[in-house]
Amino acid sequence: MYSVGVDIGATKTNFVLVQRGKILKREGVLTAKNQKGLLEAIEAVSEDLLSGISRSEVKGIGLGVPGPINKERTEILNPPNLTSLSNQPLAKIVQGHLRLKTKMENDANCFALAEARLGGGKKSKVVLGITLGSGVGGGLVINGELHKGAFGAAGEIGHMTINYNGLKCSCGGQGCLEQYASEKFFLRKGAYPQAFQEKAQKGDKRALNVYQEYGRYLGAGISSAINLIDPDVVVIGGGISSGYKFFIKSVQAEVALRVISPSARKYVKIKEAQFGAWSGAVGAALLVD
Amino acid sequence: MYSVGVDIGATKTNFVLVQRGKILKREGVLTAKNQKGLLEAIEAVSEDLLSGISRSEVKGIGLGVPGPINKERTEILNPPNLTSLSNQPLAKIVQGHLRLKTKMENDANCFALAEARLGGGKKSKVVLGITLGSGVGGGLVINGELHKGAFGAAGEIGHMTINYNGLKCSCGGQGCLEQYASEKFFLRKGAYPQAFQEKAQKGDKRALNVYQEYGRYLGAGISSAINLIDPDVVVIGGGISSGYKFFIKSVQAEVALRVISPSARKYVKIKEAQFGAWSGAVGAALLVD
Repeated sequence: MYSVGVDIGATKTNFVLVQRGKILKREGVLTAKNQKGLLEAIEAVSEDLLSGISRSEVKGIGLGVPGPINKERTEILNPPNLTSLSNQPLAKIVQGHLRLKTKMENDANCFALAEARLGGGKKSKVVLGITLGSGVGGGLVINGELHKGAFGAAGEIGHMTINYNGLKCSCGGQGCLEQYASEKFFLRKGAYPQAFQEKAQKGDKRALNVYQEYGRYLGAGISSAINLIDPDVVVIGGGISSGYKFFIKSVQAEVALRVISPSARKYVKIKEAQFGAWSGAVGAALLVD
Repeated sequence: MYSVGVDIGATKTNFVLVQRGKILKREGVLTAKNQKGLLEAIEAVSEDLLSGISRSEVKGIGLGVPGPINKERTEILNPPNLTSLSNQPLAKIVQGHLRLKTKMENDANCFALAEARLGGGKKSKVVLGITLGSGVGGGLVINGELHKGAFGAAGEIGHMTINYNGLKCSCGGQGCLEQYASEKFFLRKGAYPQAFQEKAQKGDKRALNVYQEYGRYLGAGISSAINLIDPDVVVIGGGISSGYKFFIKSVQAEVALRVISPSARKYVKIKEAQFGAWSGAVGAALLVD
């Protein structure tokens, strides 16, 4: 049996064809700016990936979408970076077009699900997935199942307060981890993360210091989550995680300092995402698995 | 069938006899300073509560203990306020003496379990229990079961960082919620919480302001937890919760500000513990239920 996973990002949409947890094919396209274009792309690329496969052998399509979705997982709620999908019952529309079972989930939850079931968190009881990019997303997987929370809103690690009187956040809060551990942090230092990464790669002192400071904030947020939910594994992904080696030591130092349980401090594993940029799409495919 | 629950606090040890979720008898004694005295008290009071009941009708004894315990729930690990029990296999010793099945759990977890199954969190999917006293403890109950975490250390909400460069904490961390939402906060303002409560009761402006500031910090910590785990209900207990009405509005204002999900913000319920000082003992009894 086959499944298709679609990770709809603000700029890029990634597709995978998955069979028994293995990626058979993958394809990335630019995300269309309007709903019609996006639906056409989802149809065309899915049909392409499924060419030669009988529909009776296809479990369905999973969609990973940015931003909050409603508790029933039928509608996207005001995605800040994908306004064309605002309050649209995307899964239902896709299901109508493609005549395949379609499910939808928040993209960071898809990321966490993929890494928990097939990637860095395999065989773990409690997995926390964190995506570092233009924002900070998160997902919690307990005993192989997504912890969606009472109102479908769990996993928002990016909006945990790590600095009570700190920077105002676009969510309306203050001192949110996202202000210190997303792209926004690097932009305040003067450039995109990629620019700092290139410099750090060449041994640039300032760039290395910027990554260290970044890691300390990220580490404080991760420590808070460890103290509350005590995961076996924390998996880190998203665009900024390509600079993993430049910030991981600072993260670990903060965990050593801020995690209260001696056993959690000692045994918790922090890992890089195994599926790289494709984790979200793989997790989306798992939704219909 | 009957169960006995024992909540061993730094100063007081509470006992309850429970049948089908109802407290039949309760008794509180001062906590003995040495292990021998403590064991004698556990035996004597338990025998007293169980007088006239056949052993075949007793499910066992549950012990709620302060501080961390090992993953296997057999030993207490260095409780800061009860050093006589350090690294002692208390449950095994009690079981040997009383010849009744004995289980042990962290006291804040017992609190959360009681409130989730029988108190303010009844029929909820995700319950966060918080105890406010000399420290800040927490416990997470998901679908009626304790979320112990991968290493038995979940629920330590008191050691979430809410102020990155804030006050040093006895845990070795910095800016922990416990520094701002436990007794320590009131002591920095000059007196024990009880003194502030008496003044607030009489309308004293400064005391009311101190409670408001307290509520804002507590609210930031609670909001962080809501963002990550999305509970239906947050139940607040512990000694300081007797001043609930003086800080709850500030807590709610912070939740309105800092919780990102519109539905979590709207629907999450914050409640006072239903069993008051007896929640921990009731939860301990549920361990053998």
